[in-house]
Amino acid sequence: MRYLITFAYDGTYYNGYQKQPNKKTIQQELEKVLTKINGNKDVSIVATGRTDSGVHALNQKAHFNLDKDIKLSELQHSINNMLPSDIYVKKIEQVSDDFHARFNVKYKEYIYKINMGEYDPIEKNYVHQYNHKLDVAEMERALKYLEGTHNFKSFTKSDDSKNDYVRTITQASLYRDAKDINKIIISIIGTGFLRYMVRNIVGFLIEVGEGKRKSSDVFSIIKAEDRTKAGKTAPPNGLYLKDVFY
Amino acid sequence: MRYLITFAYDGTYYNGYQKQPNKKTIQQELEKVLTKINGNKDVSIVATGRTDSGVHALNQKAHFNLDKDIKLSELQHSINNMLPSDIYVKKIEQVSDDFHARFNVKYKEYIYKINMGEYDPIEKNYVHQYNHKLDVAEMERALKYLEGTHNFKSFTKSDDSKNDYVRTITQASLYRDAKDINKIIISIIGTGFLRYMVRNIVGFLIEVGEGKRKSSDVFSIIKAEDRTKAGKTAPPNGLYLKDVFY
Repeated sequence: MRYLITFAYDGTYYNGYQKQPNKKTIQQELEKVLTKINGNKDVSIVATGRTDSGVHALNQKAHFNLDKDIKLSELQHSINNMLPSDIYVKKIEQVSDDFHARFNVKYKEYIYKINMGEYDPIEKNYVHQYNHKLDVAEMERALKYLEGTHNFKSFTKSDDSKNDYVRTITQASLYRDAKDINKIIISIIGTGFLRYMVRNIVGFLIEVGEGKRKSSDVFSIIKAEDRTKAGKTAPPNGLYLKDVFY
Repeated sequence: MRYLITFAYDGTYYNGYQKQPNKKTIQQELEKVLTKINGNKDVSIVATGRTDSGVHALNQKAHFNLDKDIKLSELQHSINNMLPSDIYVKKIEQVSDDFHARFNVKYKEYIYKINMGEYDPIEKNYVHQYNHKLDVAEMERALKYLEGTHNFKSFTKSDDSKNDYVRTITQASLYRDAKDINKIIISIIGTGFLRYMVRNIVGFLIEVGEGKRKSSDVFSIIKAEDRTKAGKTAPPNGLYLKDVFY
């Protein structure tokens, strides 16, 4: 039986989503629990993609197979009971055997939270602290220029060698937190993302907000296909995988 | 020179505010930093009161003396640079030598956050997760009955022996989180608080919200002067020292 789970996690104390030897990862915690439920027969899970160390997820999704056909509510309950408190399965569904959590993705939405107001120690792992006002209108213009199908090589991890750096951003926007005018939330929806792409875009956007660059610099940066032309990589703690659409 | 600081902290990884041998506490972190700034001559700080392990503060206050007269903005900057990231000094003022951070308190406000909605791993240390709907109107009535000057012995730490359990709650109320209807925030303002008093009141309020008790049970519980008559102690992670008024 193939199952699809929707899960949230606090990525603060993990070495990212993806399993690695001798490191604490989200995938490892999930597989450990599922293997137990599967009568100690190994279970591998396939998520929509990795998230890096310190990055959070509100609605990550993954599929896996179990030998047994377990009532969904019971299965969800068992998994959550065994998982550490910083990972939580919100929903579980049965899917057909050919459903694939990664290949079937249509869109993903990432959000990035920036606090331009006073530092709040309670939120230190959940928002990027930026201590000055940013030119939010200019940042919004840059986001609009990023929409569409482009070669995002300048915005990916510098040592990531791929054949294809072309990705499509279907919507890129920015809004204020409903409760706190000093907090802005950047939302980027796309069909696929390169490694560090959102954080590198945000690093560039911050320089735009600081007045160090213009929104229209997007075009020359994209054209350059050169990581050194974009800004710094924004820190992971402000980034959330918000939604995945099939 | 005597200084008054207003500071916030995430209490998750501390054994409470108050210094204890071989334990990580907020007071110890602050005194370590201030002693360094004071040329390694010991500095003791006096806060408005302790907070227990796992309890947070949005605006705790404390006074201390330094040998030097340091420009306030520089002093604040130095302290924050040396403090761990989960403690943050929001404000610093010079006060007269007879100002006392604890004795001069007129009112304190505590808030307690309860989530009746879906568990969110990102907020696990910052809100008490309660998985069912509560009768919020009946809880509000109980809060109104708690207002005034009463003997709160039934609501204090059971092994706390004091001469005087009489305290005054000037305002006790409940409101919904502006962004999330499933989150409620209980606010209690009083001239002084006994140990565990807010968490024991919240423990009782939850039983009222569950329908296990009536709001009017407040009167018999207060009259009993017996800890076993009130509810459980609510967990620390939902509790915040919100404000201190002089």
